[in-house]
Amino acid sequence: MQQQISVITLGIADFSRSRRFYGDGFGWAPVFANEEIAFYQMNGFILGTWLTRALEADVQRTGLARPGAFALAHNVATRHEVQPTLDRLAKFGGRLLRAADAPPHGGFRGYVADPDEHAWEIAWNPAWPISKEGYVTFGA
Amino acid sequence: MQQQISVITLGIADFSRSRRFYGDGFGWAPVFANEEIAFYQMNGFILGTWLTRALEADVQRTGLARPGAFALAHNVATRHEVQPTLDRLAKFGGRLLRAADAPPHGGFRGYVADPDEHAWEIAWNPAWPISKEGYVTFGA
Repeated sequence: MQQQISVITLGIADFSRSRRFYGDGFGWAPVFANEEIAFYQMNGFILGTWLTRALEADVQRTGLARPGAFALAHNVATRHEVQPTLDRLAKFGGRLLRAADAPPHGGFRGYVADPDEHAWEIAWNPAWPISKEGYVTFGA
Repeated sequence: MQQQISVITLGIADFSRSRRFYGDGFGWAPVFANEEIAFYQMNGFILGTWLTRALEADVQRTGLARPGAFALAHNVATRHEVQPTLDRLAKFGGRLLRAADAPPHGGFRGYVADPDEHAWEIAWNPAWPISKEGYVTFGA
């Protein structure tokens, strides 16, 4: 099967609060939004933010918990952008989880939680190239 | 900021069990794997599966819960592939959450949990084109 993920959907509790974090914090513009869901066109796939109760109804599963056992990463082009990006996201409704430092495997990274407790790593990873379209390739 | 997600990292409890689901179920090959992490090159970003205790140490946050308030989607090319893909994933360690049916917004979809309770939607969505490289574009 094609190694392809079409959508990442994050459950949210408050639509305006989430829009502020992604819109004003990351500066991302949705390609579609109504009162319960927003879709963002990302690098080869779609990010969705959807009211958790609607996501639960769609999956037919209740009791979705936070923080979940997963993390998303947004990579930046230089080491010097990592901490300012974490600070900016914290200013727009995020919460710093780990201040930026150098991991054992190289690069530089920190973590911030979005307003719904979803973890975002902000990282500089010079081994992983990013094309101008935003496509990220694994490198060692 | 670039609308870009570099990595989705899923916390896992048992490395072999997870490799069976992603390797034999989806048929995906890692670009890198050791005894605690596997990376898969996806459509413009990386999927990582990492022991949850290592992820918790990296984020500096304990108590990551499952199932989390999120879902991933893998879209297929035809309606007729949806249920067989769910069945195949269930055979390799997944658990059916919702049998395939038609949602109000069109298309056809069902949900399966991976061995670590992470929800995967398998969907046919004729409004969202998928390039041969696997890049998915929002459509209405």
